[in-house]
Amino acid sequence: MTRTIVASATREIIIGFDQPFCVIGERINPTGRKKLAAEMIEGNFDTVIKDALEQVAAGATMLDVNAGVTSVNPNETEPGLLVKTMEIVQGLVDVPLSIDSSVTAAIEAALKVAKGRPLVNSVTGEEEKLEAILPLCKKYDVPVVAISNDETGISMDPDVRFAVAKKIVERAMDYGIKPHDIVVDPLVMPIGALGDAGRQVFQLLYRLRNELKVNTTCGLSNISFGLPHRHGINAGFIPMVIGAGMTSAIMNPCRPQEMEAVRAANVLNGTDPNCGNWIMTYRDHKPAEGGAVATAASPAGAGGGRRGGRAGRAGAGARAE
Amino acid sequence: MTRTIVASATREIIIGFDQPFCVIGERINPTGRKKLAAEMIEGNFDTVIKDALEQVAAGATMLDVNAGVTSVNPNETEPGLLVKTMEIVQGLVDVPLSIDSSVTAAIEAALKVAKGRPLVNSVTGEEEKLEAILPLCKKYDVPVVAISNDETGISMDPDVRFAVAKKIVERAMDYGIKPHDIVVDPLVMPIGALGDAGRQVFQLLYRLRNELKVNTTCGLSNISFGLPHRHGINAGFIPMVIGAGMTSAIMNPCRPQEMEAVRAANVLNGTDPNCGNWIMTYRDHKPAEGGAVATAASPAGAGGGRRGGRAGRAGAGARAE
Repeated sequence: MTRTIVASATREIIIGFDQPFCVIGERINPTGRKKLAAEMIEGNFDTVIKDALEQVAAGATMLDVNAGVTSVNPNETEPGLLVKTMEIVQGLVDVPLSIDSSVTAAIEAALKVAKGRPLVNSVTGEEEKLEAILPLCKKYDVPVVAISNDETGISMDPDVRFAVAKKIVERAMDYGIKPHDIVVDPLVMPIGALGDAGRQVFQLLYRLRNELKVNTTCGLSNISFGLPHRHGINAGFIPMVIGAGMTSAIMNPCRPQEMEAVRAANVLNGTDPNCGNWIMTYRDHKPAEGGAVATAASPAGAGGGRRGGRAGRAGAGARAE
Repeated sequence: MTRTIVASATREIIIGFDQPFCVIGERINPTGRKKLAAEMIEGNFDTVIKDALEQVAAGATMLDVNAGVTSVNPNETEPGLLVKTMEIVQGLVDVPLSIDSSVTAAIEAALKVAKGRPLVNSVTGEEEKLEAILPLCKKYDVPVVAISNDETGISMDPDVRFAVAKKIVERAMDYGIKPHDIVVDPLVMPIGALGDAGRQVFQLLYRLRNELKVNTTCGLSNISFGLPHRHGINAGFIPMVIGAGMTSAIMNPCRPQEMEAVRAANVLNGTDPNCGNWIMTYRDHKPAEGGAVATAASPAGAGGGRRGGRAGRAGAGARAE
């Protein structure tokens, strides 16, 4: 059984097929958040602190930490800023962290101060990346996200993406890194642009699970890019990828609809024993609060167990003829 | 490709792996609805009419019609009442119907008045049922729901349930009924009572699709029986069964959360070309209306495409190092 172990100073988490889905909170990331970038450059970490606390309160299993405030000379600014951000976050919350940077020096600096066993995010199939990141993962004995693109970009052919993932796993093994420490990101495309994006991912997940036997992750909300009511698409995608074998995702845990989908899929996938987490979370749930709003067209009492009679009836052959 | 064709007088629907999920509206069913049963006995079809119109307006692909108002002498009351109900419903709406009865005489009476090509709901693996229902399906050239239990009840072993389904398909072939006219119900157990209920169904769906190559259905809300916030479990289950190959379900289409899950899964499964139905339904969607309600903990602007940058960034290898 594939088990990727990550840890904070005090808490160990297993990513695996028999584990609850690992939600990696994506919020602490200034790329694309100009206001946050400006704050972090000024040394203001109020939003980072708020995002850390809120994401853990909302149910994040891990937090991704990115300090990419600029594309100009990131080598100079990012290592120090990432270290500072890591230290603040791991002083606040006890979940394991994901060190997210495209700057190798920033990743190594963060690895030096990280407590426990962080996840490195990420390596790709690019030669330069493989040679920079894999030795660090070996040196610090940490798992790594492997994004299935290479120098040629992202292939639209899922078989090519699988081949890139396989190459990364093999190269990692050359460095003495076990496949259970590679978490493959098969790359999720926007379904609005590529109608086959969903089925591509489901097929890739099947192969990654059964052939490479690796854990998997993705930037989840990519799937709904450009569509209206993105949360609805995301919330449908989550159970589908979990059913197809995905074991983690980088996503926003502060979205109730998406987190509800994660919790439901854990129940249905058999990783929420006795539905304990579901019942604890929703035992006082009022229909109008968290889920769908009943429309005027919703008859009262629907879904209240009548179809529950189907199995019972069929089983007992009970109704007289 | 497996295609089960059902039709009303004017409209043909295909149930199949490459088709949008077929939502069979469950509301017109007095078993377990005492008030509806009392009305129907009195010849009052106001609720039937309301339920027919509302379910079609909510997006039902087909409507299930059941007139099981009593377990005392149903042979006397049910044929006439089912015929009356069918006539009212098919006079009102143009979706195909599912004739739902455990009374053989009622099924035959309904088949005589049904327009188009209805679905018979249901036959089981019980000898008496096979011999009563399959000849009718052959005579009227209609598809049938095959529930995978037999005289011994519902097996907790999914392999036994598969074997029962296989037996029904084979017996149907003896009568000259093609497998594409058998829609197997693998029987969904409540996950609150049986933690493995989800995975059992996913495995059964895989075998039913790949080995028997049949379409499938289920009484969907069974899965959440006994749990709080059932709609959340149902809405997570729908994308998982669709991803696993289920092609229809008997469910309540008047529940927005469940129908949203169906529409999202159709997009992700590639059966909503160009996301046309999704965009039409949700283009004016306000976050607070149909899906999850943002809590105070939800930072503004989250999920707005930042992870969309992941693929872009990885693809271009764009950020300087």
